[in-house]
Amino acid sequence: MLGTAGAAGAAGLVAGGAAGSGIAVAAQDRPAPLTGIGTGHIPFEGAHQAGIVEPTQARGHLVAFDLAAGADRAAAAALLRRWSDAVRAMTAAGHPSTPAGYDDQVAGDAGPSSLTVTFGFGRGFFTRTGLTAQLPAALAPLPDFPSDALDPRRSDGDLWVQIGADDALVAFHALRVIQKAARDAAGVRWQMNGFNRTPGATPAPMTGRNLMGQIDGTNNPRPSQPDFARKVFVPASGAPSSGSPAWMAGGSYAVVRRIRMLLDSWDHLSVTAQERVIGRRKSDGAPLSGGTETTAVDLDAFVHGSLAIAGDAHIRVAAPASNSGATMLRRAFSYHDGIGEDGAPDAGLLFVAWQADPMRGFVPVQRKLDGGDGLSRFLRHEASGLFAVPGGAGPGEYVGQRLLEG
Amino acid sequence: MLGTAGAAGAAGLVAGGAAGSGIAVAAQDRPAPLTGIGTGHIPFEGAHQAGIVEPTQARGHLVAFDLAAGADRAAAAALLRRWSDAVRAMTAAGHPSTPAGYDDQVAGDAGPSSLTVTFGFGRGFFTRTGLTAQLPAALAPLPDFPSDALDPRRSDGDLWVQIGADDALVAFHALRVIQKAARDAAGVRWQMNGFNRTPGATPAPMTGRNLMGQIDGTNNPRPSQPDFARKVFVPASGAPSSGSPAWMAGGSYAVVRRIRMLLDSWDHLSVTAQERVIGRRKSDGAPLSGGTETTAVDLDAFVHGSLAIAGDAHIRVAAPASNSGATMLRRAFSYHDGIGEDGAPDAGLLFVAWQADPMRGFVPVQRKLDGGDGLSRFLRHEASGLFAVPGGAGPGEYVGQRLLEG
Repeated sequence: MLGTAGAAGAAGLVAGGAAGSGIAVAAQDRPAPLTGIGTGHIPFEGAHQAGIVEPTQARGHLVAFDLAAGADRAAAAALLRRWSDAVRAMTAAGHPSTPAGYDDQVAGDAGPSSLTVTFGFGRGFFTRTGLTAQLPAALAPLPDFPSDALDPRRSDGDLWVQIGADDALVAFHALRVIQKAARDAAGVRWQMNGFNRTPGATPAPMTGRNLMGQIDGTNNPRPSQPDFARKVFVPASGAPSSGSPAWMAGGSYAVVRRIRMLLDSWDHLSVTAQERVIGRRKSDGAPLSGGTETTAVDLDAFVHGSLAIAGDAHIRVAAPASNSGATMLRRAFSYHDGIGEDGAPDAGLLFVAWQADPMRGFVPVQRKLDGGDGLSRFLRHEASGLFAVPGGAGPGEYVGQRLLEG
Repeated sequence: MLGTAGAAGAAGLVAGGAAGSGIAVAAQDRPAPLTGIGTGHIPFEGAHQAGIVEPTQARGHLVAFDLAAGADRAAAAALLRRWSDAVRAMTAAGHPSTPAGYDDQVAGDAGPSSLTVTFGFGRGFFTRTGLTAQLPAALAPLPDFPSDALDPRRSDGDLWVQIGADDALVAFHALRVIQKAARDAAGVRWQMNGFNRTPGATPAPMTGRNLMGQIDGTNNPRPSQPDFARKVFVPASGAPSSGSPAWMAGGSYAVVRRIRMLLDSWDHLSVTAQERVIGRRKSDGAPLSGGTETTAVDLDAFVHGSLAIAGDAHIRVAAPASNSGATMLRRAFSYHDGIGEDGAPDAGLLFVAWQADPMRGFVPVQRKLDGGDGLSRFLRHEASGLFAVPGGAGPGEYVGQRLLEG
C-alpha cells in the first residue's frame, strides 16, 4: 500500500528496505495523524450518493464518458463495480488507499479532503446497454431554449462523473483513477474543471460568491426544510407519478450547464445597476426588498413607486413563486479556462442543479429565465447535460447495481 | 468600501440604508475576525518582491502582457504605479480592500489568503520604453534547446505577473484587478492557471508532489542556507559581474516554462521504473542511494555493481555537482487544462525557476537535462519566458521605480 505512506521527516521513522535497490531507505511504519482540511470525510455509502447535499468543495471536475462500441450491460456493470470500489477506497476516513494498478500517488500523503465522486447515466447509456425499458421518463431530452449556444462536443454523454475535493491533487488523482478504471469500456467525451472558495478563507462558512462577485445560492432548499427530500430526491418507493422507475429510488436528476459569464460586459455596469439586475445587494446578498441575506424576498415591495425587485430581476424570474413552486438544489463550481478566443475571460459557472424531476425543477425555471431574466444578457449557456443519478450504494454494492442487475 | 463588508449572518449587524433603494437593509459595522487560511498575510513591501521565497500557494495565475503601441516610459511607470498600489491594498493584513473602480467583490469576504503578486520585465519592455541602456545582460534570450516545442503565442511578453493565493477566488480577483488596472497601457499576451496542495490536506507541511506523483523540490536551496541569497538574488550592490544593472539590486530572474507531462506514458511505467528515471523513491522521496527524503544524494553509491542513482536519472543530471554548482530555486504550480487534442491530459508543470543569473542557474542545467535526462522522454516544454524581476518596493514606492525613474 504505497499510497498510504506518509512523507519522510514526520515522526515514526523506522529502517526499511527500498524495493529493488538493496540500500537501506527509511520507511514509515504508520502515517502521521491528520488535523486540517485533509480530515474531511464524506462516506461513499448511503441512501443517496455523496456530492449532492454536502457543501461544495474547493476543487471540482466534471467528466462525461461514452461507452465503447460493443460495451454491453455486463461490461457496464463491471465498469460501475470498478468505479465504485475505487471510490469506496479513496473516500475512506483517515488515510485512504487506491486500488492497485490505478495509483499514481499524486494524493499519497493527503487525507480524503472531503472527496466525493458521484455517478450519473445519460440517455445513451440505456440504449447502448439494452436497458431502454428502464429509461426514466424524467430523462426526456431538455427542450431547446432560444438563447442556448450549446457545443454538442461538450454536452451530454452516456455516463457522467462529478468529482469534488478540498485539495486539488486529491481531486486530480480521483479523476485519473476514474479515467484509468474505465479501461476499454468507456472513453472520455468531455471534461471540465471548477473551483470554489477554500474552507477557512472567510471568517465563517457562508454562501459562496460566483465570478460576477454575487453571493449565489442563498435561496437554495436546505436539508432542514420538511420538503427538501421531496424536491431533490426520487422517493424510496419509486413512485411512478414521479416519472422514475424503482431503481431510481433515493436518486436525483442532475442538470449540468456550462454557463459562461460575460465578465467584461458585467464589470462595465455600476454596482447599483448590477444589484438591480440580480435583485440583491452585492456586498452581502440582502434582497433589495430589505433585511439581511436570509430575509425572505418580498416581490411585492415598492420603493418610491417602483418595485424594489425589478420586473426582470434574476431573483424574481427564478423564484419558486414565479414558477408554480418549481425549485432545485443548485450546487455549482466556478470555472476559469484562461482567456477565450475573443480576448475575454473564458470563465463562469459549472452549474449543477439537482431535483427529483427536471420538469418540476430546471425546465420551467429556465424557460422563464431564457426570455425574461435581465441577467441572461450577461450569460451564455455553452454546454448542457441531463443525467439520472441513482441512489447511493449499500455495503458491498456498486452504484447502479439495482439498474444493471434489476 | 464595499469590498470590505463581511457577510450577513455574522455578528455585529446594525440597521443601515441600501444605496438607492430607500428600504432598510441591514449592514455590518465591522467584519468578523478571520481564523483560517484567509489570515495568511505576506507583505507586499520589502527588499525582495513577495512570491519568490514563500511557500507556493494552492492557486496560481501566470499572465504576460505586451505594452500597447505608443505606450512609453511614462505610461509604463503609471502602469507599474497602478499595479503596485492595487497589490499593496489587496495584500494588506486583515480584510484587504481594492482600489475603487477595479473591485468586482469576488474576494470581498475573504482575508488575504497569502496572496502574492510578483512583477517582471521581458526584453521587449526595454526596447518599447526606450530603456535599452538598462537592459540586463542576464536577460539575453535563452538558447534553443533541441527538445523544445515552444508555442511563441504562449511564450515571452513585455511584462510578466505571477499571482498566488490559497483561495481560488482571491487569486481570480487579483488577476482581474491586474487586467483591469492595465487599462489601455498593456494587453494580455498569454495567461495560465495553476495549483498546488491546499494547506492542511497533509498531516504536516511537506515538499509538494507534482502530477507525476513525485515529491518535487526536495533539493531546493533553502533561505536558511548561507549562500541562498547569492544564488537567488542580485546583490544589493548590483555588482556588474552579475550581469545586472544597479536597478536590479535585490531582484531575481525568473525562467518560466510550461512543461507538459506525458502522463499516460508515465503511468504505464512500473513504480520501480519511475523511481529509476527520477532517482528517488516515489512514496517518500528518499534518494535511491539511501536514507530519507532529506538525506544528501550519494551519486557514487553502488548497489550490486550498478549505480544506485542511474546515469540518466533526473536527480543526477540536474544536480549542482553535475553542473559546476549551478542551482536555482524552483517554485512551480501544477496545471491541468482538461483533455488535450490528443486525448491525453493537458497537464503538467508551470515551472518557475529563480536565480541571480540564468547563465549560472537554469541554462546550464537545462542544457544537460535536454540531452541526458531519462525524464525528458516524458516531458514536453511547450512555452518559455525569461523575466527580470526587480527588488521589492519600499513604502510609497512602486515595483520598478528605480528602473523607470532612475
